[in-house]
Parts: sequence; C-alpha cells; structure tokens
Amino acid sequence: MTTQKATHQLTKQHNRDLVLMTIFNHDIISRADIARATNLTRTTVSDIVTVLLNEGLVKEVGFGSSQGGKSPILLSIAADSRFLVGLSLGKEKFIGAVVNLRGEIKDIVEFPVEDSNGEQALQLVYQILDQLIKKRKKSIAGIGVGTPGLINTREGIVLTSVNLDWQDLPLAQLIQKRYGLHVSILNDSQATAIGEYIYGGDHKEHKNMIVVNVKHGIGAGILINGRLFQGDGGGAGEIGHVVVEKNGALCRCGKHGCLETIASVSAVTQRVQTRVREGAKTSLPKNSHAITLDTIEAAFKSGDSLTRQVVLNAGHYLGISLANLIGTLNIQKIVLTGDMTRFGTEWFDAVQKAMHDAALTRMAQDTKLEIGTLDFKACVLGASALLTLDGYSLLFNQSSDS
Amino acid sequence: MTTQKATHQLTKQHNRDLVLMTIFNHDIISRADIARATNLTRTTVSDIVTVLLNEGLVKEVGFGSSQGGKSPILLSIAADSRFLVGLSLGKEKFIGAVVNLRGEIKDIVEFPVEDSNGEQALQLVYQILDQLIKKRKKSIAGIGVGTPGLINTREGIVLTSVNLDWQDLPLAQLIQKRYGLHVSILNDSQATAIGEYIYGGDHKEHKNMIVVNVKHGIGAGILINGRLFQGDGGGAGEIGHVVVEKNGALCRCGKHGCLETIASVSAVTQRVQTRVREGAKTSLPKNSHAITLDTIEAAFKSGDSLTRQVVLNAGHYLGISLANLIGTLNIQKIVLTGDMTRFGTEWFDAVQKAMHDAALTRMAQDTKLEIGTLDFKACVLGASALLTLDGYSLLFNQSSDS
Repeated sequence: MTTQKATHQLTKQHNRDLVLMTIFNHDIISRADIARATNLTRTTVSDIVTVLLNEGLVKEVGFGSSQGGKSPILLSIAADSRFLVGLSLGKEKFIGAVVNLRGEIKDIVEFPVEDSNGEQALQLVYQILDQLIKKRKKSIAGIGVGTPGLINTREGIVLTSVNLDWQDLPLAQLIQKRYGLHVSILNDSQATAIGEYIYGGDHKEHKNMIVVNVKHGIGAGILINGRLFQGDGGGAGEIGHVVVEKNGALCRCGKHGCLETIASVSAVTQRVQTRVREGAKTSLPKNSHAITLDTIEAAFKSGDSLTRQVVLNAGHYLGISLANLIGTLNIQKIVLTGDMTRFGTEWFDAVQKAMHDAALTRMAQDTKLEIGTLDFKACVLGASALLTLDGYSLLFNQSSDS
Repeated sequence: MTTQKATHQLTKQHNRDLVLMTIFNHDIISRADIARATNLTRTTVSDIVTVLLNEGLVKEVGFGSSQGGKSPILLSIAADSRFLVGLSLGKEKFIGAVVNLRGEIKDIVEFPVEDSNGEQALQLVYQILDQLIKKRKKSIAGIGVGTPGLINTREGIVLTSVNLDWQDLPLAQLIQKRYGLHVSILNDSQATAIGEYIYGGDHKEHKNMIVVNVKHGIGAGILINGRLFQGDGGGAGEIGHVVVEKNGALCRCGKHGCLETIASVSAVTQRVQTRVREGAKTSLPKNSHAITLDTIEAAFKSGDSLTRQVVLNAGHYLGISLANLIGTLNIQKIVLTGDMTRFGTEWFDAVQKAMHDAALTRMAQDTKLEIGTLDFKACVLGASALLTLDGYSLLFNQSSDS
C-alpha cells in the first residue's frame, strides 16, 4: 500500500512537472494544447492548472482564437512569482543575481575578490547571499552556484578549487543550512553552458552543444540531449588540462603543456609579461603590473605585433583542442565564452582555422562555431536555471511550504 | 481520431517493448515481477505475455517459490526464437555471424579481404549474407553491420570508408532491398563498444563507458546512460585522428601526427619495418614482408628491444589520448579492445601509466581501465545487438509479418 501511495504521489508530481514544463516552454498556451502536448487527459491538465493558478506560478493572460467553440483561455508562467539566485565565483570577482522564472535578472551584486583564503571566500559567498535574499526571502525557490574547480554536484561538494583554496568543501550543505533553501552547485563552465543553452539564442534547436569557456582557466560544458553531461565524477569538460604542447610550460595542476598554459587569459597575460621583460618590441608599458587583460586588449586592437602573436597563438591551440572535441563527440555546435572572446574576430578566426585544419574535414565542415551572447551573465543564469532542469519538482515542494 | 489511434498503437507497442525488455534483462521473471518492474497493471502484462508466448518470443520455464498463494510461473526469452546477423568488416577479413537473442553465436563465417575496390567489398558482403541467411531466412529479425569509417547510422549511409573505398554508399538500403530485412549500420568501434557493453562482463552496472578499439585504425565507442552516443553526425569516437605529435608522421587522413600514426597496429608495423630497414638491432627478419603483427608479437614477448620500444611508445601515446578522454568526459570505465591488446600486460601498463601521468590525478584515480573480453566477437555481437537497443519494436514488426 505504501509503495502504491508513493507511486501515486510520484505520478502526480511527474504530471505536474510535465504541465509546468510545457507552460514554461511556450510563451502562451491553452489547456487543450497542454493536453495535446503532454498526452494527459484534459481533466488532469485542468486540475493541475487550477492548483498552479492558486499558487500563483501560472497566470491567465487572454484568449486564443476559437477553433469553432469557445475561445480558449491562454496561460503563461508568472515570471515573477518565484525567484532563483545564481552565483558566479570568478577569479577576480564574485557575482550574484536574483533571476525570475524567465531568466530576467532582477538584482545583481558584484564583489571584488582580494587574494582570499578558503574561509574568506566562503564568507564572501554568505555576504552576497545575505544581501540578495533579504529582500525576497519568501519567494526565492533555490540557489545555484557556479564555481571553478572539480565539483561533485550530486553531493554538493567542491572537491578541489585551486583559485578559492577549497578542498572537499560541502558547499551546498553549508549554504542550505544557513538559508533553508535548496542549493545546487556546478562547475562554472558547466553553469555557463546551461546559461547559454537556455537563454543565449536559438540553441535549443540543437540537442547537443558544447560551450567552451576561456577565462583565467579553460573549461567546457557539454550538453547532450538537452541536458548537461557531467560524467561519472562531475568533471566532464575539464579540457583546460589536456596536454597540447609536449614539454610545455608548467601548469598549476603540476603537469606541463596543458591547454591552459597557452590559451587562457592568465597564459596570455603571463606570456606577454615575460616577452616584455625579455625586451620584445611592443607598444605596451614595460611595467608588468600595467600589463593586464585591458591593456593587452587595447594593444592587440591597435595592431601591436607582440600581443597579436601571443593572442593568435592562444587561439590556434584552442582551435586544436576544439578539433579534438569534434573528433571525440562530433557535436556540431560549439559556443565560445569568457574573457578571451574580447579579442574578437581575429582571435575567433585563428581558433576556427586551427579547428578546421586539425579536425577531419567532413566532421569540421558540419560544425558551427560561434561566440556566446550573454557575457558574464551566462554563468549566473545557468547557475540559477534550476527550473528548466531538475527544478520543476523544486517549485512544487517550495509552493507546498509557503 | 487518427492521431488518437496512432497514439494508442504507439502506447501498445511501447508497453510491449517494455515487457519484452524486462524479460530480456532478467534470466527468469514472473508476470507479477514484470508488473512491479514496469508499473503496468497485471492484466496488461498478462495480455502482452500471452501474445509473446504465442509468437514464440517468450517461453514458460518453470515455477518460482510461492509468496503465500500459487507458485508463480517463470518466463524467459526464447533465445533461439529469432536470430540476428552481425557483420564485422575488418581490414584483413570480413566476419559474419548468426546470433540468437542471448548473444550466442550460432554460425560464423570469415572471408579474407584481398585488396578490393568498393564494388568487390560490397559483393563480399552479399556473399557472406547469402550464406548466413539461407538456412534461417524465416527467423532472422535483422542485420547489423559494423564497418570502419564515418557512418550516418540514421540514414544508413557509409559517408567515407578509406579501407573499403566507399564514399556516400547507401549500404543499409542496398542490403535491405536485397534481403527484405531491417538493416542497421554502425562504425566498427561503435559496434564493438555495444558488444562489450552488453555481452562483455559486468559493464551494465556502469551507465557510462568508453571502449577504445586499437586495430589498424583507432576508434572509440562512447556509451552514455547505457546507450551509444554517436554525436550529431554519427562520428563520435573518432579519436584516431586527434593530433598527438606536432609535425609527426603523415596520416592517411592527410594530417600529420594523428594518434593512428603512432599507436595503431599499422603504425607499429610500419615503424618496426622502417627501423629494421634502417639497420636497427632486432631479432626480427630483415625482410619487410616477414614483419607482421604475428612476428612482432613474438619478438616483443621474447624481449626484443626494438619491438618493445615501438610497442610501448605506442601504448604511451594511447595513454595520453585516454587522459584527454577522461578530461573531456570524466567517464570512469574505459575498455581497450582490438589487436593491440595482444601485447598484453606490459603494453597495458604503458597505456595506464601515461594515462595517469597526463590526466588530473583526481579524475584518473577514479577511472578503471581494462581489456575487453570478447576479442573479434565484440564487433559482430554489437552489430547484431538490435534487440537490446532499438530492436524491440523491430521484433514486434517482424512477428506481425510472420
């Protein structure tokens, strides 16, 4: 009996999630069209919609054109009925945002990260969340965190995050205890991939997509059949530590010649600094501290040959890695995000050329490479995108508490 | 009305597939346990089982222990009620097998492949199929073909297969026309991966698995959530053409330094031949024609230093590629198959060591590397494994014709 009851409860929740997801995936939709899309009976759909209307998650927004009988009432997600919090923990700053059910950012805060140890980084996370959650406590459905490093999403643990000096930190549990909200944590590149996929354009036409995030580190998020693929250990997409140069520069991971040591923002900055110290001809200042991504970008765009060489070489090696991804996964849509995209068309062309040269012709020519459209927002949006992933049930539980 | 009828038909077929799959996945099972496993009602299960019994696909094999009432009748797949044909089109030989529903090989034929052009290769395929199908025409449910090259499985087209000199060949359609049977074609490494996954051991405990097939060429088959992942263009797993050595040897794909030019059977053979011609010290004969995989294997096992060097170097580079796979997919089970596995423990250790050295420690230590157990059978079994993939409906349609 108990099992039957549990199964019944599960079916009920599943049907509710299905209806909610269907409404979410359409701007506006009638009850009859929901029934057609879900194969649920009209009665079941109507009952569920009534509950969703009472909870304020869904609203009636007008009438559709009549198919002979009464004009159908159109339904839509009540975008501001619940909010999600997304956090992006970058090397130089932490960004937090309150996002509504349509991915519209309602509040955003940004804190610079000084050289902080693990505990300070955690306090900074709390500080941001305190500030964001205070105002809307009652209507917040969950918190998502995108953080660099190797993450066990299922158990909510940061296994290692070199930048933040975190080791085996039960981050999800800590935040959950403090705020009493559902928390999910993700690798930042994986979160960025979700953000781009859901909110970044017409990506949803593609079942599979790879987002390669090129910042201080390099990571990828892989979407397979419309869902994030994390691998068995949560680390899928850790392409920054693929060795691309035998006996290359020492990487922070302890190996030599990793992609990150050539193609990342850190690598480009360090390489330019070193070359300047060695006396290379450049329009950049001689003082290493003055050589930052901003000044390198300016020099690059004004045609400085040193920065062009380093940046385009970075693009070249990134392209070779993309060719490897194409060979391994044959996913035909690849989106580039992160600070390196600031180098624009010329960098992009270097990446694309190397990708085409290094991949099997037939596989490369069917692959579409593009630059993401959301900038830093991709990560906070992806981290907050619980609703569109496994979060339907979350909204269910949330509403029954309130 | 038509749509409703179609939906009803689809549901019926889906339920039937579900019951068939459940029986297939258990050695023996009662109707009541099928109902529990599928969440279908007992009446629905009983009705479907009756049809399956009538069609001979399922049989009653005895009684289980009573749970208080009558002893339940136990059901099992009738392994020899239908047969599948699997083909493996290798560089040196084509192998064809008739396989029953439990993956037991009932007939096997093997034809050597002389240097044949595309048309000759196709005639050889027909010759094998003629011979295998003749005897059991009425009970054969379908044909699966594992062939090297880039394959569009959905449309049944061999896009390019250098070895066989095939370009845009509609192989599935040609075979289907000739024999009137359902045909699916797959890349040989992908077929091998399916074979190993289903019949090779306790792999089904793992949702995700990679099989790396190291023969004359190198390819991988990637299983995600228990299903073959082919990518958008069917070419997922084409890791043989990932560049691992800058300015390395010329590959048959036109690029330089591909994994295949170092780590494949062809590469090892050619490298040993070249070194012998150059006068390297070895126990091998000086005549290039006498230097084959067999003689190299014998020399390797008797401690010949030249062959040891070439073979272990091949293993080393394969290991680096596995590290890249681990970084990209974080799949924790990797199985090695193909002729290179004949070099045994020492080769395996070289692969594993390089893999550990090149991958992030935390990701490598959780990855289990092993050698496949099925040898050449993996490919024919995988090619024939329609039933356990999308073939349930196939058996349905098949039975309604007979």
